Amino acid sequence: MSPLNRKVVLASRPTGRPDDSNFTYLQEPVAPLEDGQVLVAVDLLGIDAFIRTTLDEGSFHRGARMGGVIPALGVGDVIDSRSTTIRVGDKVFGPLGSQTHAVMPAVALRKLDTDIAPANAWLGALGLTTGLTAYFGIVDVGRVKKGDTVVVSGAAGAVGSVAGQIARLSGADKVIGIAGGSHKTAFLVEELGFDAAIDYRHENVGARLDELAPNGIDVFFDNVGGEILDDVLMRIVEGSRIVICGAISQYEKMDEVRGPRNYLKLAERHATMEGFAVFHFAAHYARAENQLAEWYRNGDIVMREHIEHGVENFPAVMNMLMTGGHHGKLLLKVSSETV
Amino acid sequence: MSPLNRKVVLASRPTGRPDDSNFTYLQEPVAPLEDGQVLVAVDLLGIDAFIRTTLDEGSFHRGARMGGVIPALGVGDVIDSRSTTIRVGDKVFGPLGSQTHAVMPAVALRKLDTDIAPANAWLGALGLTTGLTAYFGIVDVGRVKKGDTVVVSGAAGAVGSVAGQIARLSGADKVIGIAGGSHKTAFLVEELGFDAAIDYRHENVGARLDELAPNGIDVFFDNVGGEILDDVLMRIVEGSRIVICGAISQYEKMDEVRGPRNYLKLAERHATMEGFAVFHFAAHYARAENQLAEWYRNGDIVMREHIEHGVENFPAVMNMLMTGGHHGKLLLKVSSETV
Repeated sequence: MSPLNRKVVLASRPTGRPDDSNFTYLQEPVAPLEDGQVLVAVDLLGIDAFIRTTLDEGSFHRGARMGGVIPALGVGDVIDSRSTTIRVGDKVFGPLGSQTHAVMPAVALRKLDTDIAPANAWLGALGLTTGLTAYFGIVDVGRVKKGDTVVVSGAAGAVGSVAGQIARLSGADKVIGIAGGSHKTAFLVEELGFDAAIDYRHENVGARLDELAPNGIDVFFDNVGGEILDDVLMRIVEGSRIVICGAISQYEKMDEVRGPRNYLKLAERHATMEGFAVFHFAAHYARAENQLAEWYRNGDIVMREHIEHGVENFPAVMNMLMTGGHHGKLLLKVSSETV
Repeated sequence: MSPLNRKVVLASRPTGRPDDSNFTYLQEPVAPLEDGQVLVAVDLLGIDAFIRTTLDEGSFHRGARMGGVIPALGVGDVIDSRSTTIRVGDKVFGPLGSQTHAVMPAVALRKLDTDIAPANAWLGALGLTTGLTAYFGIVDVGRVKKGDTVVVSGAAGAVGSVAGQIARLSGADKVIGIAGGSHKTAFLVEELGFDAAIDYRHENVGARLDELAPNGIDVFFDNVGGEILDDVLMRIVEGSRIVICGAISQYEKMDEVRGPRNYLKLAERHATMEGFAVFHFAAHYARAENQLAEWYRNGDIVMREHIEHGVENFPAVMNMLMTGGHHGKLLLKVSSETV
């Protein structure tokens, strides 16, 4: 008898902040496997900012279909297989979506090596949307080098917290995080080893940057966009690199994005703004994973996890991400049992 | 007896478009020279977009002082000298300003070699704010290479018209200019050898770019900013280079610049926006001048000049630049005699 799949599907496309009316929670029997497919019992989903953009019509990332599950990366256990490469009992990583049971082509999945790191870490420090994204942004795009002053926005989030640590490991002289609330700024400095942190909710970001980076900012790793990006642009120096990783402040109003008003500082200071997504570096994943695994094993990279429970809470947990109600990597354990 | 200097000085700082109330025209005797100074009889001034930004308080470029002449680069003849390096009879280039007679330290001037090119050309095809700016933007920042599709905004202006020609000389497969009015677009295609031109005043820029560059835009040399920059950002490809040279559409409202709303395309397409000013390449002027002089001698670079007359008309000629009432390099012959 086939198991029941519990899932959250898209009921309507949100304008602005998603609410309950945009989602439907339902359950249905799992479809029989076809050749080459496997059935995954989903364990954990990574709750990433890109998910918000998939809810819009014609989004950059492959969008959510109306009535379909919401795209999300996850890890799980293969419990049935008609594949010759991925077998029952394998732990896998892939785009499993907002559901408890995913029927997937084996080629869309990757077998996890839990000798290198536990399954959770493959969504976090070693994850595509977290560790690898931070790595390429700091190393390949930002080209952080010895002596640099590096600023990271969204610094208490998953990508930002790893980005700051990789900046330090790459020789940065000073790593400054920007995050919302004193709990987060304390976490950055005390647990993650950032040199300083700015609470954008209660402090004047520009004035604090002037104090903390009096000689200007060499590299900015931006996850946020909006006013913070403009505050940083005012303080770049000749040769600065602005790394555009994301713009979570803009994702709920993508049809009226606030462009960086101070972008002409790029001309004044001969500076660069370069954007990227992790898949642009697909040819270099092995290099990044090897380096990240080494740092992870040595305890050089700390990843705090924030775990919520129950696939039915997927919309609420997305909302938590968008409003910053977490810190570290936000994960959803799809089982509702909080053993 | 010392000659009379006729000059235009800043009477008040404009908000938005400058008008007559912002300037005063007056004449006064030339001050006696101090050691190391020379007196230049100004012949021609280059009317450049940067001049508008010098009228604002705390501008990027060294600003105009209240009551002082308006900064402008020019060429002229030395008619008195207390310098050992620059003598009476020398032709010179430098920041002569909106006046007929400039007392300058000799070190701020450069002797012109009129064997290489006539004096006018040192404000145009070989000029710092024109030829050299275009060269570094296309060659060093845009890194235009064989096969590229290149778009230039403000293409009928001095910098833009040279930038397009250098793009072609650098191997671009297709060079598309954007300018205002059918006279200008015809000029680009028929006289300067652009492959195509878009009249932004009467055509839909996005739709025309789709037709002319169906495979996307590799390099954009931007002098304009605003909506045109956003139209191009929608059409960049992986690895595109957006070269920020200027943003003439924004110079009259620098306190409320329209930032590029589509800047997140940089992340989607792994593309770069890099700004520069010519002085960032000061160490490379000789390379650029040698190459430009060769192209100029061979007739590979055509520079149309638009010459107005009379230093007292400096404000009106600035206004002509800002509203696009010219094409090619806008020059002001400071003598009012239109011989």
